[in-house]
Amino acid sequence: MELKEALARLAELQRKMYAYQAASSSLYLDGTTVAPKDTAEGRGVALGVLAGERHKLFSAPEVGELLDFLWERRDGLDHPVRRQVEELRRSYGQLTRIPADEYMEYAVLTNQASDVWHRAKEASDFQLFRPVLEKLVAFNIKFAGYYDSSKAPYDALLNEYERGVDMAYLDSFFATLRERIVPLLHAVMEQEPPDDSFLRRRYPVEGQRRFSDYLMEVLGLDRAHCAIGETEHPYTLEFNNKDVRITTHYHEDNMDFSMYSVIHEGGHAKYELGIADELQYTCLAGGVSMGVHESQSRFYENLIGRSLPFIQAIFPKMQEFFPGQLADVTAEQFYRAVNKAQPSLIRTEADELTYCLHVMVRYEIEKQLIGGTLAVKDVPGTWNRLYKEYLGVDVPDDRRGCLQDSHWSGGSFGYFPSYALGSAYGAQMLRNMERDMDVWGPVSRGDLSGVSAWLGEKIHRYGGLMEPADVVKNACGQFDPTVFADYLEKKYSQLYAL
Amino acid sequence: MELKEALARLAELQRKMYAYQAASSSLYLDGTTVAPKDTAEGRGVALGVLAGERHKLFSAPEVGELLDFLWERRDGLDHPVRRQVEELRRSYGQLTRIPADEYMEYAVLTNQASDVWHRAKEASDFQLFRPVLEKLVAFNIKFAGYYDSSKAPYDALLNEYERGVDMAYLDSFFATLRERIVPLLHAVMEQEPPDDSFLRRRYPVEGQRRFSDYLMEVLGLDRAHCAIGETEHPYTLEFNNKDVRITTHYHEDNMDFSMYSVIHEGGHAKYELGIADELQYTCLAGGVSMGVHESQSRFYENLIGRSLPFIQAIFPKMQEFFPGQLADVTAEQFYRAVNKAQPSLIRTEADELTYCLHVMVRYEIEKQLIGGTLAVKDVPGTWNRLYKEYLGVDVPDDRRGCLQDSHWSGGSFGYFPSYALGSAYGAQMLRNMERDMDVWGPVSRGDLSGVSAWLGEKIHRYGGLMEPADVVKNACGQFDPTVFADYLEKKYSQLYAL
Repeated sequence: MELKEALARLAELQRKMYAYQAASSSLYLDGTTVAPKDTAEGRGVALGVLAGERHKLFSAPEVGELLDFLWERRDGLDHPVRRQVEELRRSYGQLTRIPADEYMEYAVLTNQASDVWHRAKEASDFQLFRPVLEKLVAFNIKFAGYYDSSKAPYDALLNEYERGVDMAYLDSFFATLRERIVPLLHAVMEQEPPDDSFLRRRYPVEGQRRFSDYLMEVLGLDRAHCAIGETEHPYTLEFNNKDVRITTHYHEDNMDFSMYSVIHEGGHAKYELGIADELQYTCLAGGVSMGVHESQSRFYENLIGRSLPFIQAIFPKMQEFFPGQLADVTAEQFYRAVNKAQPSLIRTEADELTYCLHVMVRYEIEKQLIGGTLAVKDVPGTWNRLYKEYLGVDVPDDRRGCLQDSHWSGGSFGYFPSYALGSAYGAQMLRNMERDMDVWGPVSRGDLSGVSAWLGEKIHRYGGLMEPADVVKNACGQFDPTVFADYLEKKYSQLYAL
Repeated sequence: MELKEALARLAELQRKMYAYQAASSSLYLDGTTVAPKDTAEGRGVALGVLAGERHKLFSAPEVGELLDFLWERRDGLDHPVRRQVEELRRSYGQLTRIPADEYMEYAVLTNQASDVWHRAKEASDFQLFRPVLEKLVAFNIKFAGYYDSSKAPYDALLNEYERGVDMAYLDSFFATLRERIVPLLHAVMEQEPPDDSFLRRRYPVEGQRRFSDYLMEVLGLDRAHCAIGETEHPYTLEFNNKDVRITTHYHEDNMDFSMYSVIHEGGHAKYELGIADELQYTCLAGGVSMGVHESQSRFYENLIGRSLPFIQAIFPKMQEFFPGQLADVTAEQFYRAVNKAQPSLIRTEADELTYCLHVMVRYEIEKQLIGGTLAVKDVPGTWNRLYKEYLGVDVPDDRRGCLQDSHWSGGSFGYFPSYALGSAYGAQMLRNMERDMDVWGPVSRGDLSGVSAWLGEKIHRYGGLMEPADVVKNACGQFDPTVFADYLEKKYSQLYAL
């Protein structure tokens, strides 16, 4: 085989992987947005076949030979190509270490699990989910060994979501946060809570839709390349850097839900739309990790979107969209309302201050589950105990407790810490951005172009070209979680006049 | 190989084909409905890969061996399986007779052609499209030989869209129609045309959307299995018998366009939704031919939807949807307006009486193009001459002439006659339905359940189990185009008091 031919085959392989991914994404997008209600069966058949074909394509021995051939010649490869080969070899190694029958069995299991979890959550009945969760945990412990047998199982899983991160790292990270956040929260709780009752007035969906269009404009999302849809749970789905979709959900009595969903998903979309053209249709197209992705979504949502200058900038326009609902409200009141901090039960509805505490509960449980020191049957008890300990709340039932998130039913163990890491990365990015440029002047005029340009230049364009930690380091130096703690302390001290 | 294993492989092959089709359909649906404007490139990459993978899957030598193995044992196979093997062998033979390089070259060409045609139509410049059309014609002549070298090329192409139909058959069919329709049209044109000005009042899109929902309810389309979207040109897309989508386009100054698009596409959807469960995920799921499909869509659109009893049944409701627009209109006036017959330039806007004349123009040109007796450069001249001869109209430009339809740019030669055949099949189905049951009593009360049940029982459920001609014969005896001519004569004589 000639190098030229090998490179052509490498490109072809990645285009095929792209096509399978795009096909599955399209079916998923359809299924969650416009598909009729009772049509899951046929989509399931198609998605199953596509997953199988993709697996067959990528796990073929010729792929391993091609990647080895190129790896041996890595010194002569351009950096992006070399990096593709490196990443693909890693994935190939993992995939081919999983025996085919276990892979198929696991695919069937996660498919069922999602269904079982939905029913268990509906019925608030952990016992229904328990046998499936036991199997999922067992599989993940086994798979962790295939991923990296030199690591502790949970470390191997964590590494999948945020490469380079392990329990030692996270223990220290979360300890730092807990030491700072818990006293801060206690101090906050002693103050009078801000009034947020006006957020619960009736905001008609039509007005909220127009407001979403406006927010996307403010975010600088080009509608020729980014559409918005409506789904049960908001998400971002990327086809490539010219085609990204975000979704939201409108609650008429909860206007800030969609507002901050659009800004959050918009942040994810900015990342995907900003990745360099040269990486498209390769394994390096797409955000580098969940943590870095969340750093972008939460940057726009919290650091910008929940800042006073931003709210002051857009509030007159908001009053135009919702004259009946917001005429008697000031920008400052709105700012205080959407930053109301309070211990709560549901992670996705948590405020910026308490959010990481929700994540820590899940981290502790996963660590013990995968480490073998916690039995699945004891998850609800441990969950409830940790919520009491970290957040001071009593969990009334499993629906609002350990059954609230979909992650475990999808087989994701090790994903949750990314949310907290993302928040912390974001705070450090903001600190460095403030050193480089005037952030708040333009933002207070509703102009996010400078913010977008900085993030695009420092983070977005690289896609998967660097390791996640290097992306963060490249953007804002050695990671330091105290920057995030400082940020929270400053913000909430001001908000609550501590 | 054991028979049992071979049957399992046959089922697996067809599920894979289904998955590739579903994936491409999903991408197409997305691209024409909600996808952002400038996102065609990535979808093109994905669709190209999927088409190539599907081709590779189905043209593999093992597939030929499997099909031969089963064909040798056909006497021991259940009828549906035997029929699957028969159909797949036919497709396999055709596909593998086309040299791979010609197949790929043609795929590239049709992809380009669609683009060139759009631009040529926009500019009303046939010369722009001419070189591409020349290549398309040459390819189709060559492919016709691969399809069936024992037939004249155009016969081989016709056979692809409506098996068993050839030029001798269509010459006689169209001659019958022309002899009856042309004098009828002349008589109609001597009468005072009905007033249809109220159709051009302003009908807001929101009201039309609600009206579409109502029409789908009247048609008995289960919204849990059939969704409606909005596209430039209306179409029906089927995933399986539990998941069908229709689309429409709303023109505020042309309310009957969407009304009859919804009923037409609804007819296609009824067909697909009515196909038996046992045929799903096989090559026999889906309507049997274009002609039979059009018989169903045009049945609902014209034979039912443009009938006086149907319009009388739904008109009070229509006046509720459009009180300002239809308060001063009667059901009879509406009936006359949507059945106004007049020679025109555009096929898709033609009335029921003149529609087949538009089809005949295309048939004559295709026959000569593929037969080699008409050069591509002479298409516009011949088109304009035939429009004058058949319809009596002068074609002002190619945009409203030979560039109006997308079919040729997509490589479809031999498709158009299906539209006329479908209309004629439908009239004969109606005659037999009237013999079997009371059609118009229930329809005059807005109850289409009997009509749907008859079509479901006689046609829909069979899918591809029988040959198209046998489906028609099974439903309403030997095909006889004079039934359609009689129907038109009766309807238009009454409408215009001839």
